[in-house]
Amino acid sequence: MSPARTIARALWMEGETVCLLDQRALPHEQTVLRLRTYEETTQAIRDMAVRGAGAIGIAGGFAMAQAARAAPPATFWPALDRAAAVITAARPTAKNLSYAVERVLTAMRTTSDVAAARHHAVAEAHAIYDDDARMAKAIGQAGLSLLPSDKAVLTHCNTGWLAFADWGTALAPIYLAHQQGQSVAVYVTETRPRGQGAKLTTWELQQANIPHVLIADTAAGYYMAKGDIGMVIVGADRIAANGDTANKIGTYTLATLATAHGIPFYVAAPSSTFDAACPSGAQIPIEERSEHEVLEVSGVTTAGAVVRVRLTAEGIHAKNPAFDVTPAALITRFVTEAGLIAPTREAIAQFLERAGRR
Amino acid sequence: MSPARTIARALWMEGETVCLLDQRALPHEQTVLRLRTYEETTQAIRDMAVRGAGAIGIAGGFAMAQAARAAPPATFWPALDRAAAVITAARPTAKNLSYAVERVLTAMRTTSDVAAARHHAVAEAHAIYDDDARMAKAIGQAGLSLLPSDKAVLTHCNTGWLAFADWGTALAPIYLAHQQGQSVAVYVTETRPRGQGAKLTTWELQQANIPHVLIADTAAGYYMAKGDIGMVIVGADRIAANGDTANKIGTYTLATLATAHGIPFYVAAPSSTFDAACPSGAQIPIEERSEHEVLEVSGVTTAGAVVRVRLTAEGIHAKNPAFDVTPAALITRFVTEAGLIAPTREAIAQFLERAGRR
Repeated sequence: MSPARTIARALWMEGETVCLLDQRALPHEQTVLRLRTYEETTQAIRDMAVRGAGAIGIAGGFAMAQAARAAPPATFWPALDRAAAVITAARPTAKNLSYAVERVLTAMRTTSDVAAARHHAVAEAHAIYDDDARMAKAIGQAGLSLLPSDKAVLTHCNTGWLAFADWGTALAPIYLAHQQGQSVAVYVTETRPRGQGAKLTTWELQQANIPHVLIADTAAGYYMAKGDIGMVIVGADRIAANGDTANKIGTYTLATLATAHGIPFYVAAPSSTFDAACPSGAQIPIEERSEHEVLEVSGVTTAGAVVRVRLTAEGIHAKNPAFDVTPAALITRFVTEAGLIAPTREAIAQFLERAGRR
Repeated sequence: MSPARTIARALWMEGETVCLLDQRALPHEQTVLRLRTYEETTQAIRDMAVRGAGAIGIAGGFAMAQAARAAPPATFWPALDRAAAVITAARPTAKNLSYAVERVLTAMRTTSDVAAARHHAVAEAHAIYDDDARMAKAIGQAGLSLLPSDKAVLTHCNTGWLAFADWGTALAPIYLAHQQGQSVAVYVTETRPRGQGAKLTTWELQQANIPHVLIADTAAGYYMAKGDIGMVIVGADRIAANGDTANKIGTYTLATLATAHGIPFYVAAPSSTFDAACPSGAQIPIEERSEHEVLEVSGVTTAGAVVRVRLTAEGIHAKNPAFDVTPAALITRFVTEAGLIAPTREAIAQFLERAGRR
């Protein structure tokens, strides 16, 4: 059973249409986008209408299913290869995207019959969702005993059901603890520039009635020094073979602070976020996004209108790396569907072998 | 000579009126507030129409001059003591506020004649401005040789002429370098929640034609790890006798990151920001401000309207400490009007003795 919520899933398919809750409009508006082609779905991934490692992967799998249904039989396989490349390029950092695209392609290639391949594509895309949801719940169970009883958990960005099927990743242990009656309190960082903590995580936790408070990203060190924080748990977009972890910009800062304060720092992610082919963090591509994400924000006026405003003077420029890399040495453990994994090349290789990922 | 600017000073007195550039409206609107009583000036300090350690102090001195001019001769001294207490309480963390209030009171008490005391109050308030401007320029000169030639300087919050008479504190070496034709590039952190970096520092640097770029607070660690940052320089709101330094929330995080990367971390502040009576950072009061500063931001729409928007869902709560304390051990040197000072109790005591501050 999933935690209480107002919307059952963040994304799903209805026939050939991919439906997703537009995360750019949250929490002010709940809008469902209906995307009829793989190109439309890819654009939604690129524009971050859907975001979060798992959700991006699922959307990518759905987009492949759309491409399979639409590709003409005469040029079926080249069209699918082209679609795979286009979808994968939409967000370069998230491993789950290429994972899902490859997985759908591999399932299709078990046959040379176009009709059967289309069937496999749709089935595999749905299987990715179901597998993710199962892994998310297992991550929740693996992280449950780590939660501090007397201090708060600090988390960054959004890693709940919006970001990863049903339970999320870093929020999964928190949802599970709350559901089992274990008390848990969460400090949520705003997560500038896009504010996924402020807009999405607080909204998820509010709906689930889990005690939480929002803090500016700048205040994380203050609360760690004050002794309020018992652990930090975040998600991941890509984990290299040596344990270096790309995640939302600001994660590396939180890991550095946690280390300086002796606070355990956990990364919650399923095997599908690990990239065995990537030797270390230095090889993870870091996506640079538009400076407008830093210069402007959207919010709701007292009159209830959602508007976008510029924060700075005209003509100011910004840099906007979307992710940073946390070295494995700053990570206490990975919280995975197979339990806690040490941040070492050997432990990760064994875990991925057991998970059938290499 | 001061750096090029569109407005000569951020605050000044005209007769009994304190005039100040409303920093809450910047950079979208340039509004001068005209405050006719010490109560109005105190409210402007409390509401952060004026902000920045030095500017708060100067405004506090001006407010004392207003109180001295207005207090009836029959109850003159008790009225002044009451005014001093009210003004000092407006912002509990900034040392320059109590410094300026005490300094005006001390100058007044050299006489028992009310007319002479009023004259002293006004003269001393103006002398504080002039001394601050002189100290700011000396800080600029002291910091000049520290600036890296091949990497950028990272700064936090706003520490330019808006914050501290004419030259600022942490920005003073940068202004001076630029004026002398030395190339300098600045990374400006947004400084959530109030965004003084995004709103004020970028605006100051843009006006002075100094190369700069805005980054989210979350990206500071990324650029340090990448090797872009050669030094960090920030201002201070209060420096304890042992060198522990209260400054804008997020400063402690930057100091922790700088230390982890072996990047020098400087605190630029004049003797008036040091509090010899405060043994360590543990005794510095940290102001908690309204949660609305975190939950909402103001900006300008594409139509040019300045509006305030809520970032989160309704009913979300936030915590908002305005400052944090950076332990002396994380500070490379203080950049003061008397040159570089080591962050030790002994060096600070000697510096303050020479400055006539104890």
